Amino acid sequence: MPPAAPRSGEAIFASVERVNAELFTLTYGAIVRQLLTDLEEVDEVNKQLDQMGYNIGIRLIDEFLAKSNVSRCVDFKETAEMIAKVGFKMFLGVTASVMNWDADGTCCSILLEDNPLVDFVELPDTCQGLYYCNILSGVIRGALEMVAMKTEVTWIRDMLRGDDAYELQVKLLKQVPEEYPYKDDE
Amino acid sequence: MPPAAPRSGEAIFASVERVNAELFTLTYGAIVRQLLTDLEEVDEVNKQLDQMGYNIGIRLIDEFLAKSNVSRCVDFKETAEMIAKVGFKMFLGVTASVMNWDADGTCCSILLEDNPLVDFVELPDTCQGLYYCNILSGVIRGALEMVAMKTEVTWIRDMLRGDDAYELQVKLLKQVPEEYPYKDDE
Repeated sequence: MPPAAPRSGEAIFASVERVNAELFTLTYGAIVRQLLTDLEEVDEVNKQLDQMGYNIGIRLIDEFLAKSNVSRCVDFKETAEMIAKVGFKMFLGVTASVMNWDADGTCCSILLEDNPLVDFVELPDTCQGLYYCNILSGVIRGALEMVAMKTEVTWIRDMLRGDDAYELQVKLLKQVPEEYPYKDDE
Repeated sequence: MPPAAPRSGEAIFASVERVNAELFTLTYGAIVRQLLTDLEEVDEVNKQLDQMGYNIGIRLIDEFLAKSNVSRCVDFKETAEMIAKVGFKMFLGVTASVMNWDADGTCCSILLEDNPLVDFVELPDTCQGLYYCNILSGVIRGALEMVAMKTEVTWIRDMLRGDDAYELQVKLLKQVPEEYPYKDDE
């Protein structure tokens, strides 16, 4: 039997259970505020948000694979497109695009066209240096690690820091085929 | 001009921006885990979750009033019904029902028919005493305070603690008409 065709992010997003985006935005804001209070150092907050995202990503990948019918991506290029076009749509309801590939196809940027995490957010001067959305970089890093891709994910542009877009750089460090403990059902 | 009719929670939920419920669930789980690590005492975590919810509730009420077309509720009874039927649907996509009214109509229970916060959650033995969903009680308390109702909101039943339902008791402590700093547009 031929594998089912991959579903579009839009179609998946329409079919999964969802919650109000404003509730999510405010809840995420509450996390960041809590971390700023508890950890004091902005760098530590950045690290912690990334780590929380990582822990979420390693679980979210299961939902992604289960709902998207995506079969194994042939390479990192296809993977990046899948994150931008299917992943962001499926989880946050927004679309993103991939750009700025390097020559050997191991580093690119994901540009967010909309970012529900930052609605109503303004950073006070005391939070300079904060990567408010750092949970997102952690999610991508965690999810990719579960499909055997070690990556480094960093913010290149951040509108909360005065830039004109939200741009994440995803750099493939190492690809370890078949190391992950999944059986292939096909 | 007569005021517009209140909209159903279902209709509002269908029209607002939303995010994937699993992402929300995992993000909320990350908050709870973080607080358990940072605060150590389960009672402190309960308090902090309630406080975070309160801070969310005092902002979410604006979205509720703006999107729902609900005009001022005549009494606490109507308010409780509005939270259960419109509020829960509008923000979490679930329905809830109101029951167990006391004789003077100042105390009732809200019973959740579904609870997206707890999907995939199992509490380890070290978390006995945790009210995992305590953010919800805070949200209700905060939102009601902004419409001049001081309440106490407590969990009566919690399936994560072995009960057969999620039941929140909402008790009206004090109603301060017109104390809140809103102008009436009508």
